Amino acid sequence: MKFQPPKGTRDLLPEDATKLQKIIDVCRSTFEKYGFSQLITPAFESFELLSAKGGLGEAVKDEIYYFKDKSDRELGLRFDLTMPLARVVSSTSLPKPFKRYAIDKVWRYDNPASLRFREFWQSDIDVVGNTSLLADVECLTAVCEILDRLGFKDFQIRVNSRKLLQNEFEKIVERGKVVDVFRTIDKLDKIGFEGVEAELKNKGFDPSNIIKVLKLNDLPKIPDSDGKKDLEEFFNLAKRFGIDKKLKFDISLVRGLEYYTSVVFEVNIGAKVSCGGGGRYDNLIKAVGGQDLPATGISLGLDRILEVMKENKMFKTERGNTKVFVANVDNTVIRDVILIAKELRKNNINTQTDLMERNFGKQLEYAGNSQIPFVLIIGPQEVKKKKFKLKDMKTGKQRELALKKIISLLK
Amino acid sequence: MKFQPPKGTRDLLPEDATKLQKIIDVCRSTFEKYGFSQLITPAFESFELLSAKGGLGEAVKDEIYYFKDKSDRELGLRFDLTMPLARVVSSTSLPKPFKRYAIDKVWRYDNPASLRFREFWQSDIDVVGNTSLLADVECLTAVCEILDRLGFKDFQIRVNSRKLLQNEFEKIVERGKVVDVFRTIDKLDKIGFEGVEAELKNKGFDPSNIIKVLKLNDLPKIPDSDGKKDLEEFFNLAKRFGIDKKLKFDISLVRGLEYYTSVVFEVNIGAKVSCGGGGRYDNLIKAVGGQDLPATGISLGLDRILEVMKENKMFKTERGNTKVFVANVDNTVIRDVILIAKELRKNNINTQTDLMERNFGKQLEYAGNSQIPFVLIIGPQEVKKKKFKLKDMKTGKQRELALKKIISLLK
Repeated sequence: MKFQPPKGTRDLLPEDATKLQKIIDVCRSTFEKYGFSQLITPAFESFELLSAKGGLGEAVKDEIYYFKDKSDRELGLRFDLTMPLARVVSSTSLPKPFKRYAIDKVWRYDNPASLRFREFWQSDIDVVGNTSLLADVECLTAVCEILDRLGFKDFQIRVNSRKLLQNEFEKIVERGKVVDVFRTIDKLDKIGFEGVEAELKNKGFDPSNIIKVLKLNDLPKIPDSDGKKDLEEFFNLAKRFGIDKKLKFDISLVRGLEYYTSVVFEVNIGAKVSCGGGGRYDNLIKAVGGQDLPATGISLGLDRILEVMKENKMFKTERGNTKVFVANVDNTVIRDVILIAKELRKNNINTQTDLMERNFGKQLEYAGNSQIPFVLIIGPQEVKKKKFKLKDMKTGKQRELALKKIISLLK
Repeated sequence: MKFQPPKGTRDLLPEDATKLQKIIDVCRSTFEKYGFSQLITPAFESFELLSAKGGLGEAVKDEIYYFKDKSDRELGLRFDLTMPLARVVSSTSLPKPFKRYAIDKVWRYDNPASLRFREFWQSDIDVVGNTSLLADVECLTAVCEILDRLGFKDFQIRVNSRKLLQNEFEKIVERGKVVDVFRTIDKLDKIGFEGVEAELKNKGFDPSNIIKVLKLNDLPKIPDSDGKKDLEEFFNLAKRFGIDKKLKFDISLVRGLEYYTSVVFEVNIGAKVSCGGGGRYDNLIKAVGGQDLPATGISLGLDRILEVMKENKMFKTERGNTKVFVANVDNTVIRDVILIAKELRKNNINTQTDLMERNFGKQLEYAGNSQIPFVLIIGPQEVKKKKFKLKDMKTGKQRELALKKIISLLK
């Protein structure tokens, strides 16, 4: 009987957990650099809150992990970090703008597929309480810095305005039916222009004019409208923040239907892998019972980023974080090994010693298997001389040195 | 309609989230110093795995969040980080000893009370695959270092051996009934000696000899046994690691019934608040279908540590992590503010600017409310002179300085 992680979930063994942690650390320090603070909310929320998403109601049940507690309270694992933020903001008074980040797991009852899990990591920043597009651009600037620090060179953020799209479509289809057109266009990346054309035809629309709009990718040529004005301001600000070269206007970008009201973004890395997105959602907080507070934000999917970085060998890290293994030649020097390890740790050097009463050869083998870069060899001779052999496990070279020297080398 | 976090859970707003994050960071860096690597496992596990705990079976359902997924798989939110570790180790081949840490949320369907939540944070280290008490002492040494770094001065770790207790009780009650005695003794901290005495009497035991054993707190005076030998070795090692002064032998310590087989620990901070514990559990991994792998570990409850540290004002941090707010005197200098903020962030200084198109007074007010320690004042005059006023928000003092000087001051 061997147990597995539940379907759609996975373990991150140390090698991968260390890599994910590096991504999280880069996100966190960048978000803080831009003045965002962390908010931590429970893994589950009341079903009533979760079902407030885009007015989906009961239908949300099909997409989430839904359960009742022992007092029959209806609950669900959160499917994103935005609904919990909306809840907190609507019930708490915090200085505005509230600039928050959250890096945590979320759960969706999707069909598991490559790069798609039922439990996955999101890294979000949002600004609540202001209408200025400065906030949107600041969020994107932080995201660009994260991707840059992680080593991505060819990422791109597609930008559109839901208002612009609404303006254009209202000219060619009935106002009440625009959302139905959006629903089809949202599948563009999956089914292509031909698929969109076929589905629109099926729904009773004349696809030709709609497809024409979707190919209008030159912003200056689009007729003036509120949506266009927003986008122009947005791209101007982006230029000031120095991120304009990473952005691309894409009139076909819809980004789901739930709560976006104005600009929307999608982040692409590598070969058009989407690793996140976001946009402005000025009505959500009111919808969950709060004040009328505008908001904008962006969410990164860390599992995708992790997998793309692994595939492209973008990590330099070893398997774990241990720098040195202090090996004993025999058990007469255990006491010295403990003292030396203590001294190394006091100097913030990540250190391991033998815990298995293994012989010297086996200790070296363990250090090798664990990809620990250095082994410090302690025997009775070395203790007497107060000089110890430091072995570089990559090159196999060893040097005999005093502890002080070893510490300054390993630091 | 205002939504609340589900019963027994709580939000950590930035002020508290920042504090919890500091505790997590101290745990993480200390664990890594001792050569532990991170393992990340799913929030929920198969119910079959969870019910393998201490042979409790179905009864576990009463204590956990249990649910089924849409394919009727029985699942439950994990109640600790040890069962997932046991699962991973029993189904994966990793170099031994496997030294892992995990810092994450767990869930128990307890009655919420002061310092007791249904969703709470654990910070665990475990060593899997060795029988030497070196591992146990190393775990405790790491925990002592964490508590020390967090600023605790009066913490104490109570230590006992389940084997010793078994040895002693087998002399006075039937072997098969020892576990029943353990069950009562485990309540000692809650119900006191009198309560224990009464309950034992109720169960049909003669309490006097049992109570006598519980008061044997002088290890050298206890008759020789396997359990005693273990403890003596343990305290000798602790002395070598320099943590013996923080440990206290307590023969009445049981630490639950589930899986401990030898030494057990309990960590107390402040006025006898328990903030964690652990011990050796040499049979658990076999019980969940793995090899016969011995293991030991310790778990800290971070919510308790957070609350005790807050109560005792042990944090020095500001509300958030922002160091400076770059304020504009009027909107003619927005472009300069963006450039200056960019430069500050490039130097890793956590920086905010106005996103609300607020006037200067309101910007100062926001910085004050957000407890941002410095405000940098930018107006047309300052831009011309290339000197800017840096206001210390605590003292109210301001100095006019060049940007370079400001950066080196804030760094």
